Amino acid sequence: MRKGIAASKGYAIGKVFIQEHEEIVISDVKINDIQAEKELLQRALVSSKEQLEKIKAKAVESMGEEKAEVFEAHITLLDDPEFTGAMELEIETNSVNAMKAVDGVTNTFVMIFESMEDAYMRERAADIKDVSKRIIANIAGKVDSFEITEANTIVVAHDLTPSDTAQLDRSKVVAFLTNIGGRTSHSAIMARTLEIPAVVGLKDITTSVKNGDTVIVDGIEGVVIVNPDEATVQEYVAKREKFVAEQEELKKLISVKTVTKSGKRIEVCGNIGKPEDVHQVLANGGDGVGLFRTEFLYMDRDSAPTEEEQFESYKYVLEKMEGKQVVIRTLDIGGDKTLPYLPLPEEMNPFLGYRAIRLCLDKKELFKVQLRALLRASIYGNLCVMFPMISGLEEFVQAKEVVDECKAELKAEGKEYSETTQWGIMVEIPAAAVYADELAKHVDFFSIGTNDLIQYTLAADRMSEKVSYLYNPMHPAVLRLIKMTIDGAHKHGKWVGMCGEMAGDEAAIATLVEYGLDEFSMSASSILNAKKIIIEQE
Amino acid sequence: MRKGIAASKGYAIGKVFIQEHEEIVISDVKINDIQAEKELLQRALVSSKEQLEKIKAKAVESMGEEKAEVFEAHITLLDDPEFTGAMELEIETNSVNAMKAVDGVTNTFVMIFESMEDAYMRERAADIKDVSKRIIANIAGKVDSFEITEANTIVVAHDLTPSDTAQLDRSKVVAFLTNIGGRTSHSAIMARTLEIPAVVGLKDITTSVKNGDTVIVDGIEGVVIVNPDEATVQEYVAKREKFVAEQEELKKLISVKTVTKSGKRIEVCGNIGKPEDVHQVLANGGDGVGLFRTEFLYMDRDSAPTEEEQFESYKYVLEKMEGKQVVIRTLDIGGDKTLPYLPLPEEMNPFLGYRAIRLCLDKKELFKVQLRALLRASIYGNLCVMFPMISGLEEFVQAKEVVDECKAELKAEGKEYSETTQWGIMVEIPAAAVYADELAKHVDFFSIGTNDLIQYTLAADRMSEKVSYLYNPMHPAVLRLIKMTIDGAHKHGKWVGMCGEMAGDEAAIATLVEYGLDEFSMSASSILNAKKIIIEQE
Repeated sequence: MRKGIAASKGYAIGKVFIQEHEEIVISDVKINDIQAEKELLQRALVSSKEQLEKIKAKAVESMGEEKAEVFEAHITLLDDPEFTGAMELEIETNSVNAMKAVDGVTNTFVMIFESMEDAYMRERAADIKDVSKRIIANIAGKVDSFEITEANTIVVAHDLTPSDTAQLDRSKVVAFLTNIGGRTSHSAIMARTLEIPAVVGLKDITTSVKNGDTVIVDGIEGVVIVNPDEATVQEYVAKREKFVAEQEELKKLISVKTVTKSGKRIEVCGNIGKPEDVHQVLANGGDGVGLFRTEFLYMDRDSAPTEEEQFESYKYVLEKMEGKQVVIRTLDIGGDKTLPYLPLPEEMNPFLGYRAIRLCLDKKELFKVQLRALLRASIYGNLCVMFPMISGLEEFVQAKEVVDECKAELKAEGKEYSETTQWGIMVEIPAAAVYADELAKHVDFFSIGTNDLIQYTLAADRMSEKVSYLYNPMHPAVLRLIKMTIDGAHKHGKWVGMCGEMAGDEAAIATLVEYGLDEFSMSASSILNAKKIIIEQE
Repeated sequence: MRKGIAASKGYAIGKVFIQEHEEIVISDVKINDIQAEKELLQRALVSSKEQLEKIKAKAVESMGEEKAEVFEAHITLLDDPEFTGAMELEIETNSVNAMKAVDGVTNTFVMIFESMEDAYMRERAADIKDVSKRIIANIAGKVDSFEITEANTIVVAHDLTPSDTAQLDRSKVVAFLTNIGGRTSHSAIMARTLEIPAVVGLKDITTSVKNGDTVIVDGIEGVVIVNPDEATVQEYVAKREKFVAEQEELKKLISVKTVTKSGKRIEVCGNIGKPEDVHQVLANGGDGVGLFRTEFLYMDRDSAPTEEEQFESYKYVLEKMEGKQVVIRTLDIGGDKTLPYLPLPEEMNPFLGYRAIRLCLDKKELFKVQLRALLRASIYGNLCVMFPMISGLEEFVQAKEVVDECKAELKAEGKEYSETTQWGIMVEIPAAAVYADELAKHVDFFSIGTNDLIQYTLAADRMSEKVSYLYNPMHPAVLRLIKMTIDGAHKHGKWVGMCGEMAGDEAAIATLVEYGLDEFSMSASSILNAKKIIIEQE
């Protein structure tokens, strides 16, 4: 039995297929015929693009438009003259061979992206590596084929690139295992989208199994059993059947309203980062969107999104949700999230610094673009807007003043907005929780952001290896602050949601229902399980 | 009227004396006679040392042993072969002149110290600059004399170095003004020790007054009035008399016990960083030591202090306080405080990271040295020990287990310790305040550390320029947490102190007395004023 990181739920039993990337040696040989080498590069670029177009088409089919976008990004990269031009220039000026030129240029780009603080930008480094490998393989004439012919195949690899994963044929591949990666690595996310079990971070699984071995994959415990005896196989067959049946059972809850045994109606909603994510929320029976993290609209671009672009995004979400409640959080940038076009001051403790509403109140012009877009979109559905990182009443009052300014402008321009939009705050700073009963007089609703609330309440950055053990959602002080927030809101007839990870945490849900939480918001894939637990509560 | 930063309280009226440091140009000229240049350097080093010995003697007289220590540090620097040897080497190998050699070597040292994260080490850069200036002036034969002959002189300078300040003759100098500096700069601290009014950060005061001008210095409002009319002079003469009378009045409170009108006895104590600081506490009528920041024993050295060294320090404080209560906080390192011999992990948010009790529980051997020293010293007075950064009961229990381990060891070794020592915690993490009523069952006392509590409660680093405006001790949520802490402790018959800056804040004292705070601890210079305010409360 081998233990790795559980990356995608489920059980599988099948035969090993080791996916080996052929080792390509990049030589240092200088070339004489520059023109010939440039043509070699061009042909490799064209082939790479053709392959990626095919992979993308396959990915759209198996995983949907949104997840296939990564391949569009790869194709865009191949079309980027700055990227490919640098390779040609390298061949011309330094007489290096095409492979070496590709390797050199992409390494530089990878280094730049990997040095960025923003996790999203760092992930782009993986895309560039993936594309670079493909171009080099095409130059070498050694493109990996990924032809799996047997049913019940378990793919074993050092790592799987996005393009590898996209090519997995779900009718044949029942699970995959990799040496490296974590729960949030590309391949893990892909596995969850494809709904096939996966265990990653197994260190040396590629060398400890061989083609044709029988393997049991337990994607819940992160366990792999190689060449199991018959009794173990039977045990896991039973587990798999039970799991599949439970999943089927959960799916029945999609259209069921969430009501506790004592008759309290509770909203179970989804968190989204991009407009297209609403489809996942609806597919999993979400009662609404409890958190739209709008900062994703601002990331991975050279300038802030325009009012028109934002308006279209908000309108899209509101329309698709067809009158269901949509809670949109205004820009929460700063802390660990940065934007290339918005320089932030160097701070010793960015989590205790210039971010979210603090930044927006300071950069009013940036803030107003978003607020105008939200107001204009408000007529297309049931909109709630909330401000992040509120520490006291004054910040909420100031933010509402900017909203009023935007309303006056829109009125003067003859543009419509809804008067029924609700205006609330994130409760994620201890001060807001402690002072909730007073704040509740002024806001329409609260949404508890547990990730930050826990960090500040315990003064422990959960990203810091040395103190992450202190991060505990069930710490009695954290629970008290949650209770104070809910009681404070209810005292003044306001509702309270929760959009941090704790809302989807099986161990916490019963307590939160008991405290009177009105709305739970979580990743779409957790909604059905949460519904099931909630309807079992008093 | 000109406005600067009020650096030291009081009023003065006098004549301007502009202290100009003669500009010395450091030439690039290469030299031929290496030996002669090395001798020039040696003579300058000797003269510098002689001057510093005199300044030190004067400083001991005017400011006491402790404040004069800075000059001992300067002299030590002149004796450091690494420092002066590097200068000689520079002359030998690069044929640079002596001045240039001193300048080059000291700049390198300054750069190293200024790049350190620890504020204490960064201050050392100022010492090196001060010494460097002196050596260069001696080489040039242009040492500033600081001969002030007139009474009622107000010294005006771009900045005052520690050695300048030490040379100020209090019988003649009644105040000083500088272009640069802030409330915590060296010159400001010196002014408060000398008890002469000072306004710093005046930007261009050296060029906006001339020798002989009459000037009024208001060290309370940070105001300077140049060549005032007679009415203004009379106004300030009256203010000065009133201030002096008040100061005299305050001094009468030194031996008065602090009791509110309704008869509640309140302890007003002092915060100390070094053992010698107890004298200031006693001189200002402190009822005890409310916070001994032991990290200062660990700083500015190459290795951790031994058990014996620590034992002597704790024993000294306990004995000098003659049975008055002494609260010693165990090592609070990490965050913005680092030690050269204790490498810490790189963290994105050190204030939310590996520090204080977290580090001590992890590095048990380091912790035990301090606990053994504390236990052994406990028989010499009335000792209370508190652990910093406690977020929950478990950490306190674990710390007490280490204490028990140390007790067992000492018992086995036949060494004595007191059984009446009180064991408490700092309440500086929101979780501890929220959970105070439960924690109070287990601890002997609480001490509220407002500096950190406010930062975490409002998620605002007060060192960050962009968000320091949020740092507000009177924020209603902060006040509620303080009330919860006091109520929680009193419910179980435990006492509560406060050792953050808020305890000495005139605007906060009335509220804290009303909440029932039992002990206030602050810098020694604030004790008398706090006593005065407290005895006026109900």
